[in-house]
Amino acid sequence: MPFTASILTLYPEMFPGPLGVSLAGRALERGDWSCEAVQIRDFATDKHRTVDDTPAGGGAGMVLKPNVLAAALDSVTPGRPVLAMTPRGKPIGQRRIREIAAGPGIVIICGRFEGFDERFFEARPQIEEVSLADIVLSGGETAALAILDACIRLLPGVMGAPESGHEESFESGLLEYPHYTRPQEWEGRTIPEVLRSGDHAKIAAWRQRQAEDITRLRRPDLWERYRGVRDQSASGARHEDQD
Amino acid sequence: MPFTASILTLYPEMFPGPLGVSLAGRALERGDWSCEAVQIRDFATDKHRTVDDTPAGGGAGMVLKPNVLAAALDSVTPGRPVLAMTPRGKPIGQRRIREIAAGPGIVIICGRFEGFDERFFEARPQIEEVSLADIVLSGGETAALAILDACIRLLPGVMGAPESGHEESFESGLLEYPHYTRPQEWEGRTIPEVLRSGDHAKIAAWRQRQAEDITRLRRPDLWERYRGVRDQSASGARHEDQD
Repeated sequence: MPFTASILTLYPEMFPGPLGVSLAGRALERGDWSCEAVQIRDFATDKHRTVDDTPAGGGAGMVLKPNVLAAALDSVTPGRPVLAMTPRGKPIGQRRIREIAAGPGIVIICGRFEGFDERFFEARPQIEEVSLADIVLSGGETAALAILDACIRLLPGVMGAPESGHEESFESGLLEYPHYTRPQEWEGRTIPEVLRSGDHAKIAAWRQRQAEDITRLRRPDLWERYRGVRDQSASGARHEDQD
Repeated sequence: MPFTASILTLYPEMFPGPLGVSLAGRALERGDWSCEAVQIRDFATDKHRTVDDTPAGGGAGMVLKPNVLAAALDSVTPGRPVLAMTPRGKPIGQRRIREIAAGPGIVIICGRFEGFDERFFEARPQIEEVSLADIVLSGGETAALAILDACIRLLPGVMGAPESGHEESFESGLLEYPHYTRPQEWEGRTIPEVLRSGDHAKIAAWRQRQAEDITRLRRPDLWERYRGVRDQSASGARHEDQD
């Protein structure tokens, strides 16, 4: 069975969208994954096909109705992780992406308006509330596209060079070292000498130091975690997952 | 002048994509923003239109050539923030989104393959290297769509109710309180009594406490920052920006 993505949304025409071209698009054509966009509105129960209503207790915006959301979710094949995109969720990281990509598929619920009725989450505890970034979107759809993209590139056979999936950002706990390619000189700037040395050990050491420097400078949060994990590993202690 | 987005990409057909429908799509039709997708490949200098090359020093993947990238960037109208989407970048937050949305537009450079030649950033220091989330995408395009979505919803006239832009996640430094709407009872679960009390002060206090509880539980990082800012405000000290 290919990796099966089901997206619950009020805008099914957004899918596969940008994932219908390039790497993900070719994988879709090959059948490495499939994409089902489920129209939440189809599960409304009144003749106006109402999906939202005003917030109890007052306030701006509209809230997605729990009964309609639950009917939509209950309609899709179970046995896959279920993510609801919301700024209130747990920030997603590459480790969770890898876990999901190794499984049978994913269900992503895209919110709109002010958000979901809280009882939807209480009544369907399999749902993970997930946040992509600390920014506010008009809906969960663009976040869902990014998460799908991250999963699909990890599916077997999708990336050209198998090693491309490994030595990359967040996997080592460090940001990536800087990259260079031809031309050798450009606007008066040259590729660092060490990269032309042919000395693989020296190159690896330089890249490791660069990765450490950039991580310490730009992401003190990742750097602290990396140092903690490294220290625990060095002392032989069993260490916690990094995310 | 409307808010002008220029996207440098190898897949211009991905834009506006999902932003051509719903809230952003209607705003695009009204002329509240415009979207220009620039094909990076058009700035290649050889007859094969090469945009990438093998990494200096060895390793997997391909690196985007600095001269081609720079020619593409130099072709677009200046005077707008320039973001390059990369996992090595600074995590973007709602504060930066608000700043960008208040300006004339945005330029977003989407990477593919292993990444950008580092000299591109050195030679064009106006570029902000920005990360959307700690996940690895097949390219910057889906991240760019999310960032554009976050900006567009804040443009004047785009959101229906003007107050919808205010009382929301990350603006107060707290995650949002839970929402409820009709039906009053669903699957044996009822809307909290306080929200039906009509007592606005009591409702506001309940929501504040809920927002604090959920933030402390789910996002200790935001909670610590919120407490720090609140304490400094209370003591009358001038406090730092939150992101």
